[in-house]
Amino acid sequence: MTKKTTEWVMREIRGGVCAPKGFRSSAVAAEIKIPGSDRLDLALVASVVPAQAAGVFTKNLVKAAPVMVSQKNLRSRFVRAVLLNSGNANACTGKQGHLDCLEKTRAVSECLGVRQSNILVCSTGRIGRKLPMKRILPKIPDLCAKLRVGNSLAVARAIMTSDTFAKQSAREVRLTSGTVCIGGVAKGAGMINPNMATMLCVLTTDVLISSPKLRAVLREVVDQTFNRITVDGDMSTNDTVLLLANGESGVAAESESDVELFTAAVRAVCTELARMIVRDGEGTSKVIELEVRRARSDAEARRAAEAAANSILLKCAWAGGDPNWGRILDAVGYSGARFNPDRVAVFYEDVPVVADGVAVDANERAVKKIAARKEFKVVVDLGAGFSDYTVLTTDLTEEYVRLNLSE
Amino acid sequence: MTKKTTEWVMREIRGGVCAPKGFRSSAVAAEIKIPGSDRLDLALVASVVPAQAAGVFTKNLVKAAPVMVSQKNLRSRFVRAVLLNSGNANACTGKQGHLDCLEKTRAVSECLGVRQSNILVCSTGRIGRKLPMKRILPKIPDLCAKLRVGNSLAVARAIMTSDTFAKQSAREVRLTSGTVCIGGVAKGAGMINPNMATMLCVLTTDVLISSPKLRAVLREVVDQTFNRITVDGDMSTNDTVLLLANGESGVAAESESDVELFTAAVRAVCTELARMIVRDGEGTSKVIELEVRRARSDAEARRAAEAAANSILLKCAWAGGDPNWGRILDAVGYSGARFNPDRVAVFYEDVPVVADGVAVDANERAVKKIAARKEFKVVVDLGAGFSDYTVLTTDLTEEYVRLNLSE
Repeated sequence: MTKKTTEWVMREIRGGVCAPKGFRSSAVAAEIKIPGSDRLDLALVASVVPAQAAGVFTKNLVKAAPVMVSQKNLRSRFVRAVLLNSGNANACTGKQGHLDCLEKTRAVSECLGVRQSNILVCSTGRIGRKLPMKRILPKIPDLCAKLRVGNSLAVARAIMTSDTFAKQSAREVRLTSGTVCIGGVAKGAGMINPNMATMLCVLTTDVLISSPKLRAVLREVVDQTFNRITVDGDMSTNDTVLLLANGESGVAAESESDVELFTAAVRAVCTELARMIVRDGEGTSKVIELEVRRARSDAEARRAAEAAANSILLKCAWAGGDPNWGRILDAVGYSGARFNPDRVAVFYEDVPVVADGVAVDANERAVKKIAARKEFKVVVDLGAGFSDYTVLTTDLTEEYVRLNLSE
Repeated sequence: MTKKTTEWVMREIRGGVCAPKGFRSSAVAAEIKIPGSDRLDLALVASVVPAQAAGVFTKNLVKAAPVMVSQKNLRSRFVRAVLLNSGNANACTGKQGHLDCLEKTRAVSECLGVRQSNILVCSTGRIGRKLPMKRILPKIPDLCAKLRVGNSLAVARAIMTSDTFAKQSAREVRLTSGTVCIGGVAKGAGMINPNMATMLCVLTTDVLISSPKLRAVLREVVDQTFNRITVDGDMSTNDTVLLLANGESGVAAESESDVELFTAAVRAVCTELARMIVRDGEGTSKVIELEVRRARSDAEARRAAEAAANSILLKCAWAGGDPNWGRILDAVGYSGARFNPDRVAVFYEDVPVVADGVAVDANERAVKKIAARKEFKVVVDLGAGFSDYTVLTTDLTEEYVRLNLSE
């Protein structure tokens, strides 16, 4: 008799974007930011077969050329590869920026022997500088030749800007007819805000899924993860989250329960990447989970949470370990959310610091201890309705200002 | 024959809130913030006769008790005095905060022999602490006894929090039947934003004017001055601008042209005070006049200007002397204003740094020189309509963060 082991449904695995079957990746140093540097800054993620793909992009009116080109190419039925670079955002570069994107997709399509419209492009880095095409183009054959299963970490490194560590994650999930994998790499650092400012994320999966379902899954997950993190309230010209599904596992996500399981796995990968991004916020020292409870509507819960999460004064207080609930009440007060100030409660973890709109003086010391931690939770209970909203945010340190004095 | 001199219409005068006829003021040290300190922190501005009054208050849902009491007392026909304190905002203090306000108005009304409902109250300082009434109440007789014409500067000093200099201003303006005076004191520093975060301002005038006209003048002027300055995007629980008109000059502002002249004088006083507030922004080193031109509507011009003026990243760049137009385009891009990114122009003073959405590389050095100044102007021309909007903003320095690590 064999011993029965507990059945797992989802589990963490290694391999990042190359964990799902049929994906390869590579990265090289193309000296994009600094001539002569051997820092990885050009990367490729490719599928061995045409993949379904979905994308969520910046809502900024000023969109970088690669965003516009990728949006367009997503309309072609399949995607074969994503070319990414750091060191230069190719934003506000006019016609030339657009032509450079086309030139890059042409070069990759030639090397891989696939259609030009099946290549997506992502860029991150300084705005307003032309891409050094003379250094990028000669590296593309090399990049294509280096495509391997084991290179996900190199891709995660190549897209780093002021990130201090590479960000990747992967999950395996058991659907009705077998297991599928989901992997991802991401970069964050400055300018992170709801609606994914200056972040790139490429997700891969070997599930077999229809294109409309894939798009719905990505939209839902991004709204629950990357759209709920904020570092400094800015939203960039280049934000991109891509999800490629190549079906190489042969396992389909068709039934509602399978799509739900698959969504949960994508969410797990994105949640992990989003948390890494906040933890690595430029010059920040703390991660704060801020939850607004019992607002009158979802929209008001979100406005209140984002107002507090982006209040410069509050973020400075957190940096100093000051559980400044006055600044919290002030921020939710001007957020536009409607509530009765005499009914508000504020908690640091489970400790009430404000009840019915006034200070709970007895808890002052306990709350100070919590605010001194590197990670803590703040709950603002508006007592006005039934809607909750949570964002992950950071403090604001002198180091942050120093880092952003210039690019 | 006497030599004819050029006739003046408006001129700067001394005396602050006591420049207009029939106003007296005083200030004392009531040890509100720090027991034992001899720092002025309690002030009184009074009119010798009942004055018409208008007020503009914070739009924050979380309003301090003095704001609510002053709003209510403004509905009584006249105002006789305004009691102000720094060191404690009396905000988020629940019922006790309200009772303390009533206690203070009662004490002043008894000393001055006027109605309790004719007294207004303003507080600024830390949120969520009860007022030290035991130290405040015994000082009120002293404060009333000290009322003099020459004390405006003492009042301006008494309301300072992290302000580094006292702020007062006064003008004399010639109307059809004679001259009238307008004076004011203000405090600003942190949390300054459109809608006047954490600022107090008391304006006095000896013009004879109807109450509805007085309210209209104040609303118009506040919208053009204090609502167009921003330091850190927060809006406080205590913002208050009051305008008292006691008619003691005997000169009426009735005709349209006289009301216009009077408005211009009030605007001149408020513009000067607003500029002082920005210049004295907590831990800031630069004042930037940011103008958005040719937006599609007034609302969009304002949204674009405020998004840029409050962008943490852009403010950090300015602190470093970096004319980072990428961050400007990024901010107006996510502001919600609609425009064609390929038509945008950005100027530092008169020097174009972006034209048709791309960098004017030739001007890089000239623009850097401008961004290194202590005060400069930035123009963002959206090329999309006919609406302009200007805000005064500041940079964001390490010093700012250090000052706000805790209260």
